[in-house]
Amino acid sequence: MIRLSTRDASFTRDFAALVDARRESDADVTRDVSNILRSVREEGDAALRAFTQKLDGHDLDDGGWSIPLADCAAAFDALDPVLRDALELAATRIRAYHEKQRPAGSDFTDEAGVRLGARWRPVDAAGIYVPGGRAAYPSTLLMNAIPAKVAGVERLVVVTPTPKGAINPLVLAAAHLAGADEVWRIGGAQAIAALAWGTDRIARVDVVTGPGNAWVAEAKRQVYGVVGIDMVAGPSEIIVVADGANDPDWIAADLLSQAEHDVTTQSILFTDSADFADSVVAAVERQLVELPTRDTARIAWEANGAIVLVDTLEQAMPLVDALAPEHVEIAVDDPQPLFDMMRHAGSAFLGRYTPEAIGDYVAGPNHVLPTGRRARFASGLGVTDFMKRTSFLQLDAAALAKLGPATVALAEAEGLPAHAQSVARRL
Amino acid sequence: MIRLSTRDASFTRDFAALVDARRESDADVTRDVSNILRSVREEGDAALRAFTQKLDGHDLDDGGWSIPLADCAAAFDALDPVLRDALELAATRIRAYHEKQRPAGSDFTDEAGVRLGARWRPVDAAGIYVPGGRAAYPSTLLMNAIPAKVAGVERLVVVTPTPKGAINPLVLAAAHLAGADEVWRIGGAQAIAALAWGTDRIARVDVVTGPGNAWVAEAKRQVYGVVGIDMVAGPSEIIVVADGANDPDWIAADLLSQAEHDVTTQSILFTDSADFADSVVAAVERQLVELPTRDTARIAWEANGAIVLVDTLEQAMPLVDALAPEHVEIAVDDPQPLFDMMRHAGSAFLGRYTPEAIGDYVAGPNHVLPTGRRARFASGLGVTDFMKRTSFLQLDAAALAKLGPATVALAEAEGLPAHAQSVARRL
Repeated sequence: MIRLSTRDASFTRDFAALVDARRESDADVTRDVSNILRSVREEGDAALRAFTQKLDGHDLDDGGWSIPLADCAAAFDALDPVLRDALELAATRIRAYHEKQRPAGSDFTDEAGVRLGARWRPVDAAGIYVPGGRAAYPSTLLMNAIPAKVAGVERLVVVTPTPKGAINPLVLAAAHLAGADEVWRIGGAQAIAALAWGTDRIARVDVVTGPGNAWVAEAKRQVYGVVGIDMVAGPSEIIVVADGANDPDWIAADLLSQAEHDVTTQSILFTDSADFADSVVAAVERQLVELPTRDTARIAWEANGAIVLVDTLEQAMPLVDALAPEHVEIAVDDPQPLFDMMRHAGSAFLGRYTPEAIGDYVAGPNHVLPTGRRARFASGLGVTDFMKRTSFLQLDAAALAKLGPATVALAEAEGLPAHAQSVARRL
Repeated sequence: MIRLSTRDASFTRDFAALVDARRESDADVTRDVSNILRSVREEGDAALRAFTQKLDGHDLDDGGWSIPLADCAAAFDALDPVLRDALELAATRIRAYHEKQRPAGSDFTDEAGVRLGARWRPVDAAGIYVPGGRAAYPSTLLMNAIPAKVAGVERLVVVTPTPKGAINPLVLAAAHLAGADEVWRIGGAQAIAALAWGTDRIARVDVVTGPGNAWVAEAKRQVYGVVGIDMVAGPSEIIVVADGANDPDWIAADLLSQAEHDVTTQSILFTDSADFADSVVAAVERQLVELPTRDTARIAWEANGAIVLVDTLEQAMPLVDALAPEHVEIAVDDPQPLFDMMRHAGSAFLGRYTPEAIGDYVAGPNHVLPTGRRARFASGLGVTDFMKRTSFLQLDAAALAKLGPATVALAEAEGLPAHAQSVARRL
């Protein structure tokens, strides 16, 4: 963990180093992934079976390639009622939030008599990747699948590895709740290849979303263009902008909630109170002792954590923009003026009673968000990631007479005479 | 050119071959592009200068790295008035269409007392690639730059190669009209690298759009995630759905308007009249003799063209969906019922007086569209490609009391105790 102050002589240089720090793996998996993709594309199910035997340690022909939807329903029914209610609350609120994202399209006729507009339609099929092992989060399945269903996607395919054949009942329950149409027991780059190109058993999809390890991320990058993908994801991060009137224990818990995800995650506190900074550092240390996930959280906090002391919180906001974080909390009584100053963040959590974790589960907005400074240009997952827009035009002879001559002039200037003639012949 | 009929015994197989035909280059430029990107990232302007000397045949230190904005204004003023008016009409109509795409965002408080919403902001800087040589189209510059300006992008950077130092005055004029802030005389993968990572002279941008050759396309693919990009572009295509009441010369001109772009482009006619199909074939042959771009157009038509005879035009629409074309014309008196049947296309041109070329220039919708069946999942370029969305949440103690317990239950079930504590401490 590093501590910086905007009053330090070296602040500009030190902060630039913080901004440019790369937390993403340098593991060069490009070639491995290319080979896996090529194998699945050429050999289909045989390659899927072989990779699953080798990497996940079970035989799909023995244990079954897919999980019956009835098993998903049974897993849901068998949930502890408290958990089932919590998942249902999450699904209901996520659905309500995303329904407001459905785009309206347009259809109008302008003063030249030209009808123009745009029409949105869902993709035919979407594939959702759900990691196995410790990162197998039912909440992530909901966050990916519900926007697809709200978009109107008719075929929703879940792929999830089942290492050593072990199936996570929480994931099955979430697949049931989200309305998955197929659940396949495959993972890794091989699963992404199956979704992109299809095999005899698994029909290809149009969009692939969902988190994964470096192999999955690289596989998605390589199939981008064959299918749509959500984004290139990297390690997660949180920035907390807090004044000295906060409870240090609350803010420490927020910083640790990011740190416990993975050793590559980053938690940064901006505050205008040096005393408060000290109290938060002490609270982090106290809480780490008790935290069941302390091994991961401590490494992440010590390696990537930072506290930046500013003269005023207003001074912090351009610095936050430079980091363009996935999550930003603005923990003050009146967060709106600071939020209005900010340009770049995936998701913002306003006020003292809005810990980031509330947005991970039940609040409604998506928790699949741009990381690694990509909030400069990227957005969280949404309904339109599972839809596409067809623009349209309709002219009659009178409208073409108005726009035709300019089109002919431009087409000829660009050296495209057949373009010009397709208009000129109709004039 | 191939002719198919849905009545052929082999139709299913033949049509599948048409759908799966790859027109994209297999040239493996991946490694070349990686090397160019690495050089520019490490050596900056020196690498840019060296690649430009080698590939474009001029020295940036001699002829100037950038084109002064005053030169762009002068090029605009020096245009033939007919052309200038045409460009201005195009810019005005493109701007009007795209202004309707500006997203509204949302901000509301639900029945649980949770404030939630989404806020859209432009990216800080966008880079537009404009090819040199024969594909240096001022219309493409307008189609890329105007949505960025409508989005509110404050820094709009144009890069365009100037082979042998030759500058295209039409491109400069369009850059002036579109409001470009910088115009750099660089191209190829090296220009994409400069936009993505920046150099001493050229500050990095957040989004890179615009067409280019295989090197440029691969470079964009490789920098995707470092910056946003518009899409992976491939060869262009048009489908014309036409009944026998059309003028064969009009439809032939439409097919050739696509074919003249490049030998990899594809033009396909679906019709329910065999006689009309014969007349179109004859008209294509007649027009090709006179067409200045006949060398390209003939190769494209003969290699990739197709005519598909259907019993009814309704039968054609699922076949069109399977091809998911960049452009589709529906040339009948009442196109709406057929258009309503269709799911996948980048842009639709409805009725007998809407040749595709009208959409390339002045109609208003964007001509940067998904190709190579990507209309299954991708949309044309638009204002939101230059913006990003920040979701936000604000809870008070009462709202947190309602959502908190479910969050704690889910976080504990997922094995994320610090997430649970960040909520539980506030309850």
